[in-house]
Amino acid sequence: MSSRQDGRSGEDRLIDRFFRPIAKHPGALGLVDDAAFLTPPEGSDLVLTVDAVVSGVHFFADDAADLVAKKALRVNLSDLAAKGAKPLGALLSLSMPENTGNDWLQAFARGLGEDCDAFDCPLLGGDTTGTPGSLTISVTALGAVPTGKMVKRSGALPGDVLVVTGTIGDAVLGLKLRHQPDSPAFARLNRTARAHLGDRYLMPQPRLVLARSLHEQATAAIDISDGLAGDVGKLAAASGVAARIEAKRIPFSAPARAVLAEEPGLIEAMLGGGDDYEIAAAVPENHFKALQAAGAEAGVDVTAIGRIEAGEGVTVLGLDGQPLSLKQASFSHF
Amino acid sequence: MSSRQDGRSGEDRLIDRFFRPIAKHPGALGLVDDAAFLTPPEGSDLVLTVDAVVSGVHFFADDAADLVAKKALRVNLSDLAAKGAKPLGALLSLSMPENTGNDWLQAFARGLGEDCDAFDCPLLGGDTTGTPGSLTISVTALGAVPTGKMVKRSGALPGDVLVVTGTIGDAVLGLKLRHQPDSPAFARLNRTARAHLGDRYLMPQPRLVLARSLHEQATAAIDISDGLAGDVGKLAAASGVAARIEAKRIPFSAPARAVLAEEPGLIEAMLGGGDDYEIAAAVPENHFKALQAAGAEAGVDVTAIGRIEAGEGVTVLGLDGQPLSLKQASFSHF
Repeated sequence: MSSRQDGRSGEDRLIDRFFRPIAKHPGALGLVDDAAFLTPPEGSDLVLTVDAVVSGVHFFADDAADLVAKKALRVNLSDLAAKGAKPLGALLSLSMPENTGNDWLQAFARGLGEDCDAFDCPLLGGDTTGTPGSLTISVTALGAVPTGKMVKRSGALPGDVLVVTGTIGDAVLGLKLRHQPDSPAFARLNRTARAHLGDRYLMPQPRLVLARSLHEQATAAIDISDGLAGDVGKLAAASGVAARIEAKRIPFSAPARAVLAEEPGLIEAMLGGGDDYEIAAAVPENHFKALQAAGAEAGVDVTAIGRIEAGEGVTVLGLDGQPLSLKQASFSHF
Repeated sequence: MSSRQDGRSGEDRLIDRFFRPIAKHPGALGLVDDAAFLTPPEGSDLVLTVDAVVSGVHFFADDAADLVAKKALRVNLSDLAAKGAKPLGALLSLSMPENTGNDWLQAFARGLGEDCDAFDCPLLGGDTTGTPGSLTISVTALGAVPTGKMVKRSGALPGDVLVVTGTIGDAVLGLKLRHQPDSPAFARLNRTARAHLGDRYLMPQPRLVLARSLHEQATAAIDISDGLAGDVGKLAAASGVAARIEAKRIPFSAPARAVLAEEPGLIEAMLGGGDDYEIAAAVPENHFKALQAAGAEAGVDVTAIGRIEAGEGVTVLGLDGQPLSLKQASFSHF
């Protein structure tokens, strides 16, 4: 009896069915090889980042699978954006409980494929395993910047303008809204306003359109993923400088302002909470206008919220002009 | 009251304490940035692979943490070796249950650091998260080959010699030994022989010393991680050819031969089981000696075990010269 085999395991069939159709880059080799290949652009440095999202920690088990996939990719693209890098591709590592259904996988792959296309970040490779634990999605993203031009957390100089992209605090309110939809803080929000906050939690908007301007204009930058105050603190620490943030200049969305009007104390969570996925950057005074103009052209607000100063630490001046005391500097998963 | 903060979360402190000391490459930026940077070698393609190992699936919860770290890295380095690539660096994504202790982390980081040094594969970046589930370690490895020279699964041609590195089947016996130490199959093994098989399961030996020879000599190659028969089947399928393996030519270690003498039926598990982390390659007849010589110089046996032929599928001729019927072609986690 002959033992002709197609050499295909359940894992192979799963990759073939769900992920191969979205891995269109030639270097991905249809996900049927041990590895992918990629010719790096000449004159570039690679920018490399990895972030995992875990069911029950970073997303809810009943979140739509396509949105989970997008979030898992976007949190990495947000890192690339903050470093001034253009995406080159991504690798996926997916650990799935036994009860992960084909419907879930289909939607997950569809969402991932849509965002790989939308952000021009091809899926290059991946690994799928079973797990007795929680669904875990780890994405590694590769980007490129001109050699030597990655925007680091270090490099900010006293006198630089401290800027942020977009609006701050929406995502943490979106998460609170999910946990406590009937909280008086949200009482005056209409459906659109609620959806805005919810989306901002579910769906980061990586500011890749500003990547090039950032490596041209900024002295330092950080992806705001663990709260504005804490992340600006990390930029300041890495740069050996102090940062002063004026709360009155921080850009808040209309729904966020409505919530703050009801419950001003929430500003603490909004500045110390996570998941903004905006960029904080230090920009020399004479470069600020150019960065802001690039943002305007790309439809992303770039707002000056304070200054880099000599010294250390980050000070937040509250809406009353007095320094705020934030209990939680930064979100931590521990 | 001022709110000066150091902006450091528990996650930052953990990375700082355990992983920063082993991330010595300048592009790792001491793991204090959003991303790492790396200048790719000129004239090279990147080779990219990711593999996750999960507690309870790919290793035992009580395995020594330093060995778990090494295995997590080495399974990726084995992929790079099979593709003919030299390592450039690795990124780690670690999802940890709450009860993961500092002793475990210390040993894990030490083991990882030792292997990053041993294989010249610097740790460039990482992410740590909590998980309510199983400890999950996902490693992304980057390597380099001369542009266009990655050894693919496709490319094997009828007439090529089918070769393997090292010995086959040890790891699956090492795993069985762990589950059934008192099985009669293992009755005649002394302590050294048992340790050999156990180590082969725990500690893959990525054949990076052969990477360069492979991209110079081989038409196709695959990392044997899911069983020789199944993985050769994948190489054959990707190349559009058939493969014939002669069991009598497959290199077995002395302990494996002793086990086979007691229980010949185990050959099925040894050819269909996983975790060899050797390389199967197709090599033109007139290149075989050069590859074998490179192996001899590097201390790695390169053995011809069969042929690539026209057709499809993989046929294994048993020790009696009759085609074997392998029930399980390939290990699958599903």
